[in-house]
Amino acid sequence: MASLGDIGLAAAINILSAIGFLLAFAVLRLQPLNDRVYFPKWYLKGIRSSPTHSGNFIKKFVNLDAGTYLRFLNWMPAALRMPEPELISHAGLDSTVYIRIYLLGLKIFVPLTFLAFAILVPVNWTGGTLERFKNLTFSDIDKLSISNVPPGSERFWAHLVMAYVFTFWTCYTLYKEYEIIASMRLHFLASENRRPDQFTVLVRNVPPDPDESVSEHVEHFFTVNHHGHYLTHQVVYNANRLAKLVENKKSLQNWLVYYQNKYTRNPKKRPTVKTKFFGLFGKAVDAIDYYTAEIEKVTTAEAAERIRVVGDPKSIMPASFVSFKTRWGAAVCAQTQQTSNPTLWLTEWAPEPRDVYWSNLAIPFVELTVRRLIMAVALFFLTFFFMIPITFVQSLANIESIKKVAPFLKPLIKRKVVKSFIQGFLPGIALKIFLILLPTILMTMSKVEGFTSLSKLERRSASKYYLFLLINVFLGSIIAGTAFQNLDSFIHQSASDIPRIIGVSIPMKATFFITYIMVDGWAGIAAEIIRLKPLIVFHLKNTFLVKTEQDREQAMDPGSLEFGASEPRIQLYFLLGLVYSVITPILLPFIIVFFSFSFVVYRHQIINVYHQQYESGASFWPDVHRRIITAMIISQLLLMGLMSTKDAAQSTPLLLALPVLTIWFHIYSKNRFESAFVRFPLQDAMVKDTLERATEPNLDLKAYLQDAYLHPVFHSEGSEAAINEEESNSLVPTKRTSHRSTPVGSRYGSEVGSEVEF
Amino acid sequence: MASLGDIGLAAAINILSAIGFLLAFAVLRLQPLNDRVYFPKWYLKGIRSSPTHSGNFIKKFVNLDAGTYLRFLNWMPAALRMPEPELISHAGLDSTVYIRIYLLGLKIFVPLTFLAFAILVPVNWTGGTLERFKNLTFSDIDKLSISNVPPGSERFWAHLVMAYVFTFWTCYTLYKEYEIIASMRLHFLASENRRPDQFTVLVRNVPPDPDESVSEHVEHFFTVNHHGHYLTHQVVYNANRLAKLVENKKSLQNWLVYYQNKYTRNPKKRPTVKTKFFGLFGKAVDAIDYYTAEIEKVTTAEAAERIRVVGDPKSIMPASFVSFKTRWGAAVCAQTQQTSNPTLWLTEWAPEPRDVYWSNLAIPFVELTVRRLIMAVALFFLTFFFMIPITFVQSLANIESIKKVAPFLKPLIKRKVVKSFIQGFLPGIALKIFLILLPTILMTMSKVEGFTSLSKLERRSASKYYLFLLINVFLGSIIAGTAFQNLDSFIHQSASDIPRIIGVSIPMKATFFITYIMVDGWAGIAAEIIRLKPLIVFHLKNTFLVKTEQDREQAMDPGSLEFGASEPRIQLYFLLGLVYSVITPILLPFIIVFFSFSFVVYRHQIINVYHQQYESGASFWPDVHRRIITAMIISQLLLMGLMSTKDAAQSTPLLLALPVLTIWFHIYSKNRFESAFVRFPLQDAMVKDTLERATEPNLDLKAYLQDAYLHPVFHSEGSEAAINEEESNSLVPTKRTSHRSTPVGSRYGSEVGSEVEF
Repeated sequence: MASLGDIGLAAAINILSAIGFLLAFAVLRLQPLNDRVYFPKWYLKGIRSSPTHSGNFIKKFVNLDAGTYLRFLNWMPAALRMPEPELISHAGLDSTVYIRIYLLGLKIFVPLTFLAFAILVPVNWTGGTLERFKNLTFSDIDKLSISNVPPGSERFWAHLVMAYVFTFWTCYTLYKEYEIIASMRLHFLASENRRPDQFTVLVRNVPPDPDESVSEHVEHFFTVNHHGHYLTHQVVYNANRLAKLVENKKSLQNWLVYYQNKYTRNPKKRPTVKTKFFGLFGKAVDAIDYYTAEIEKVTTAEAAERIRVVGDPKSIMPASFVSFKTRWGAAVCAQTQQTSNPTLWLTEWAPEPRDVYWSNLAIPFVELTVRRLIMAVALFFLTFFFMIPITFVQSLANIESIKKVAPFLKPLIKRKVVKSFIQGFLPGIALKIFLILLPTILMTMSKVEGFTSLSKLERRSASKYYLFLLINVFLGSIIAGTAFQNLDSFIHQSASDIPRIIGVSIPMKATFFITYIMVDGWAGIAAEIIRLKPLIVFHLKNTFLVKTEQDREQAMDPGSLEFGASEPRIQLYFLLGLVYSVITPILLPFIIVFFSFSFVVYRHQIINVYHQQYESGASFWPDVHRRIITAMIISQLLLMGLMSTKDAAQSTPLLLALPVLTIWFHIYSKNRFESAFVRFPLQDAMVKDTLERATEPNLDLKAYLQDAYLHPVFHSEGSEAAINEEESNSLVPTKRTSHRSTPVGSRYGSEVGSEVEF
Repeated sequence: MASLGDIGLAAAINILSAIGFLLAFAVLRLQPLNDRVYFPKWYLKGIRSSPTHSGNFIKKFVNLDAGTYLRFLNWMPAALRMPEPELISHAGLDSTVYIRIYLLGLKIFVPLTFLAFAILVPVNWTGGTLERFKNLTFSDIDKLSISNVPPGSERFWAHLVMAYVFTFWTCYTLYKEYEIIASMRLHFLASENRRPDQFTVLVRNVPPDPDESVSEHVEHFFTVNHHGHYLTHQVVYNANRLAKLVENKKSLQNWLVYYQNKYTRNPKKRPTVKTKFFGLFGKAVDAIDYYTAEIEKVTTAEAAERIRVVGDPKSIMPASFVSFKTRWGAAVCAQTQQTSNPTLWLTEWAPEPRDVYWSNLAIPFVELTVRRLIMAVALFFLTFFFMIPITFVQSLANIESIKKVAPFLKPLIKRKVVKSFIQGFLPGIALKIFLILLPTILMTMSKVEGFTSLSKLERRSASKYYLFLLINVFLGSIIAGTAFQNLDSFIHQSASDIPRIIGVSIPMKATFFITYIMVDGWAGIAAEIIRLKPLIVFHLKNTFLVKTEQDREQAMDPGSLEFGASEPRIQLYFLLGLVYSVITPILLPFIIVFFSFSFVVYRHQIINVYHQQYESGASFWPDVHRRIITAMIISQLLLMGLMSTKDAAQSTPLLLALPVLTIWFHIYSKNRFESAFVRFPLQDAMVKDTLERATEPNLDLKAYLQDAYLHPVFHSEGSEAAINEEESNSLVPTKRTSHRSTPVGSRYGSEVGSEVEF
C-alpha cells in the first residue's frame, strides 16, 4: 500500500507529463503549418483561411513570435470565454451538453469533497484502529479512510448520515441538471430553423402488396389514414453496392493523385505499380495509366449500377421517409400506431438526413428480435470471456512458439534486449489492441442490432461499453481474477455476501484507483489535446495528396466527440467518486482535478476542433442520467456490504432505504423529463406551424422536402436528374444541412456523401 | 409421504364432496324460489321473468317435477352448447376470454400429460433408486417421480429433452392463444357499436390558469392544438361527498322499507328503533317516523350539496373528458404528448363510463409517484411480514389471555369442548379472515395508487395477489417457515443455491399439492356453483325488503368474475403444472381435472349468473400471458436446481438456455401483440369513421356525447337539467351502455349509479 508520499510522487510525475503534453501542444498549435490540425472547425465554418497565403516563406511554417510562446496556457481562458448560447450555435447542442457532463461532475463532487474533508476525514483520522496494531503496515491514506474506524464504533453514524447527505445532494444536482438540459433541448428544438426531419417520419416494414409498388402503397396508405396531412414521401433504395463502388472509386482517385504528384516532382521517371495483392506482387505497370483505366472501369460499373438501383423494383426497400404538410401531422404519425398489426407500418421520427444509417433500413421485424437476442448473448460472452482469445494470442506470442513457427528468427530472439522486449511487451500488446478495437467491435454489434440512426448506434455502443468497463475495469480491479471466474464465484455466493466481499476490498484499492485517475484521466486528457494521430495523418496527406486548397480541406480530419467510447469513461469517474466519497474521501480531489481539466480541454476541442457528424439535440442525456443513478446504487450497496463487516449491523436497514429511494427518484425523474427526449409535443409543433404559416405563406414545402432523404450516393448532379423524374424544377436546392451556413453545409456533405465531389 | 392409495382415498372424498355440492346445486337451482339466484343474468337481460307469476301456490316455491331432478347434470352440456360468438355478445369479451384461460390450461397440459406419461413415467418407474434402499420409506408416487432416477444417470437426458419439448409446446400454445385473443379483441372493437369512449380521451393534470376556468382552459387548449378535431368536453366534479350522501340515503330508505313491511305484517304494533350507536342505545322512537324524518334531512342536504358541487369552481377537478369529432382524432390525442412538460395535460383513452373510478381522477402527478412508492413498500411488508399481526391476534386469542380479559367466561372455557374449540379453531380463524380480506386489502392498495378505471384496478390487484400467492402459498408450502425467514435465509444463500434448495424439496411436496388441488380446486369450484352467500342474502332481502317486482330485481346479486382475486388462483395451477410436469408427472391429471371442471362451471356461471361491471375488451390478457411466462421461468430454474443435485451437471448449460429463450419469447410476443391491448390503431379508427360518415351523415355526435361522462350521481332527472344548462334539447338520451339492449343497459345503470332510481 502506497503512502501519501508515494501518491504525491506519482501525482508529480503525472502532472509533469501533463504539463509536457500541454507545452508540446502550445508549441505545435502556434505553428501555421499545424493550423488546420488544431483549428479545423473554424476552417469548416469558413471563418479562418490558410495562413500560408500571406507573409514570408518561413513564417508560413514556423511561428517566430516569441511572445506567443510565453502565453502558452492562454487557450484555457479563451476556451472558457465563449458563452453557452453562442457555444450551442457554434458547436451544436450535443457537444455543449456533452461538456456539461464534466460540469455536472464538478457540481456533484466539489460540495461532496468539502463535506467529506470537513467531517469524514477528521472522524477517520482520529479513529485510531490501525495504530493499535503495531505490526500492521498501513499508510496515511488508510488512516484517512473508513478502515481506521474501529468495528462497532459509534463513529459510523457520521458515515451513515453522510451517505444520506451525499445521496440527496447527488439526486438534487441530477434533477436540476435534467431540468436544465430538458429545457435547453426544448428551447433548441423550438428555435431551430426549418429542417426536413421536423416534417418527416420514417416508416419501416411496409407490407408487400401484390398490386402496388412500395411507393404507391405508401402513398395510398398515408393519403387515407392521414388524410389532409400527408404531403410526399421518399422511398429508400438499397444502394449499399453502389455506395461501395463510389467508395472504391474515391480510393483509386486518391492513388492516381498520389502518383501524379510523384511524377510532377520527379518528371524523369514515370511511377510504376504492381497490380496483384496490394501492390506487392505481379507485373509492374505504369501507375498513372493503370489508375486512369481502373477509374474508367469503375465509373462505367457505377453508372450501370445507378441505373439498376433506380430501375429495379427489387432494390426498393420496404421502408420510406414520409413527409407531412405540418409538423403537427408528422408528430401525430410518429407517435401513433398505424395498423392493428404492430409489426407493420412502424413509424418513428426520421433522424436528421446525415444521421441516417442507411444500411439498416430494410431489416424485417422478426429478424430484428433475433438479432438482438444474438447480440445480447454475444455481449455477455464478450464481457465475461474476452480474456480467452487474448490469452490464446498471448500464448502464441511467447518465445517458445515463435521459435517453433519461425526458426530463422532464433538468433535474433536469443539477444537479450529482443527477448525481454518480447516477454515484457508482446503479451500486453494483444490486450491493448483489443481494448483499442473494443469501441469499434461494440459499434459493429450495435449495427448488427439494426438501429437506423448514427446517434442511436452511438448510444447503444455506450451502454455496452459501460457494462464492459463496469465489470472488467471496476470490478476486475477490485477483485482479482477474470470476469468469468468472479461471475462463477458470485453465483455460488449469497446475495448478501457479494456486496460484502467487494465492499471489504474497496478501501484497499483506493491508491490503485488514484493512480488510475492520474494516468488515464489527467495524462490521457492532456494527450487528447495534442491530437497526435490527426497531426501525423494530416501532414502525410498534405505531403503526398494535396494539390489545391480544396484538397487541403479534404485532408483535414476534425474528428468528433465519440460518445460511444468517451462517455462510458467519464461514467467510470462518477462511479469511483461516488463509491469512495464515503469510504476514502482522499480520492475525491483527484476526481475534481480530472473533471475540471477535462472540462477546459473538451471545451477547447469542441470550439476549435471537433465537428459533429450529426445533431441529436442532446438525446443522450437520459442515458447519462441513468448511468449516474446506477453508480449511486452500486456505491450504496457496496457501502452496505462494507458496513456489515464493521459490526455496524444497525445501519443495514437505514442504508437499505437509500437504494429504494434512489430507484424511486430515477422513476420519478424519468417520468418527469424523459419524454422530452423521446417525443415531440403537439403544442410545440402547432406553435411552430402557425408561426411558419404566418411568416412564409407561400412556402413550397414539397419542393423543399423532395430530395432531403435521398441516399447520399444520389446527391450528385448527374444522377439527381435521374431520380428527379417527376419534378425537375425544384425551387429549393437540396440542402441536407440547411440549418447551417451553406459553405459548411456543402463541405459537410462532402464528408457524409463524400463520394460525390471528387 | 402418502401412497397412491392415500391419494386415491383423498380423491374419492373430494370427488364425493364435489358431487354433493353438485347435487345440492341441482336441487336448489330447480326451485322457482331460487331462480333469481341461479339465473340472474337472464333477468337482467329481460328475457326471463319471475316464475311466481303463474301456476299454483306450491309450484311457485318448490319444483315437484321429478324428471328434472334425474337429469341433475344436464346444465353441463347446456353450458358448453352456446357458441363463442354468441357468448361474446351475451356475456361480453372479458368473460369469454376469461374462461379461455381454463381452455388454455387444457391446451397446454393435455398434450404435456400424454407425453409425460408415455416417456417420463416409464423412465422414472424403472429408475430403481428408491428400491435399493430397503430402509427408506417411499411411496408409489415417489417411484413415479424424478426422485427414483439414480444420480448421474443417463436417464436425465429424457427429462432434459422433455423440458425443452414442454417449453416449446407451452410457448407455441401461448403464442397461438395470444394471436387468437388479439384478433378477437380487434374484431370486437371493430364490430362494436358507437360508444362514447371511442371518441373520448381522459385528460388529467390540467394546469391551473389565473384567467380561465378549467372548462375554458380545456376548451381553448384543445381547440388550438387539435384544431378541427376537438368537439366537446365534460369537466369532472369532485362529487365524492355527494355520492356518500346518496349512499347514506339509500341505506336509510332500505331501513324504512324494512319497518314499513314489518308494520304491514303486524299492524297492531308500530315498530320502534333506538337512535344511538347502531340502534343499541338511546331512546326508542317510532321507526317509520324516524326514518322518514331522517330521509327528509338527507334529501335536503343532498340537494344543497348538489347545488354546491355544480356551482363551486373548487369542486371542479383539474381533469376532463375531452371528446373528438372522430375516432381518429381521439386516437391521435390519446397516443400523443400534448405539451413539453410531460406531467401536464396527460392524455389517455377514456375508460368506459361505467369503468371509471371517479374518486381517483384528481390526484396530481407528484403525489402519484409518491403513492406508488409507499404502496410498493407496503406490498413488500404485507407479503413478507403479514404473519406478524396475525400471530399477535392469535396470541391474544388463546385461553390464558381470554381468561385475563374476560374472567366471567372462565366457567365456560373450562368445559372441554369449548376449550378444544378455542385452541383448535380460533388461531386459524385470524388467518382465514385475513386471507378472505386479502383481495379487498390489495384492491384498496391499488386504489391508493391512483388508477382511474376499475379494470386497471382489478389488473393491479391481480398482480399483487399473484405475488402474494407465489411467495406465501407456493414457496411457503415448499419451504417451511414464514416468508420473511425464507427471504432472510435466501439473502444469505448463493444465487445458485436458492433454486437447488427449493428444487430438492419440490418432489417431496407433490402429494401435498395434489391434495391442495383437490380441496382448493375441485371442491372449491363445486362450492362456487352453489353461490351460498348470494343465496342467503337474496332470501333475507326477499323476506324483509321486497315489496314490488322492481325491489326483487334490486335484491338480486348476480356478482361478477372477480378478476383481481380469481385469476391469480388459476395462475397457481399453471405454476404447479409447469413445475411438476417434468419432476412428478402424476400431478398433471389432477390439474387437467381442475381446468376442465372449472371451464364447465365458469362457462355456466358467465352464461347464467355473472354480470360484469364493465367491459375492457380482454385488456387483461397481457398480464395472463406474462404470469404464465413467469411460471415457466420459475419451473426451469427449479429444474436446474434439482438437476444440479442429481450429479447431472452437464445439463446446466443446456437448461440455462431455456430461460434465456423463454425471456426472448416473452419480449417477442410482447412486441408482436401487446400494443393491440394498449393502443388503438389509426387505420381501424379511420375505417370506422368513414363507415359511420357514410351510414349516418346526420348524426348529432355532440348531443350523443353530452352527458356520457357525467358523474353517476348526476344521472337523475332532477339534477341533469341543472348541469345541462347549455344544451337541454338533447336528441339522443344518455345511454351509458348503448351497446347493450336498452332494458339491460338502464337496469345496469341502476347498479353503478344505483343511487338514482330509488
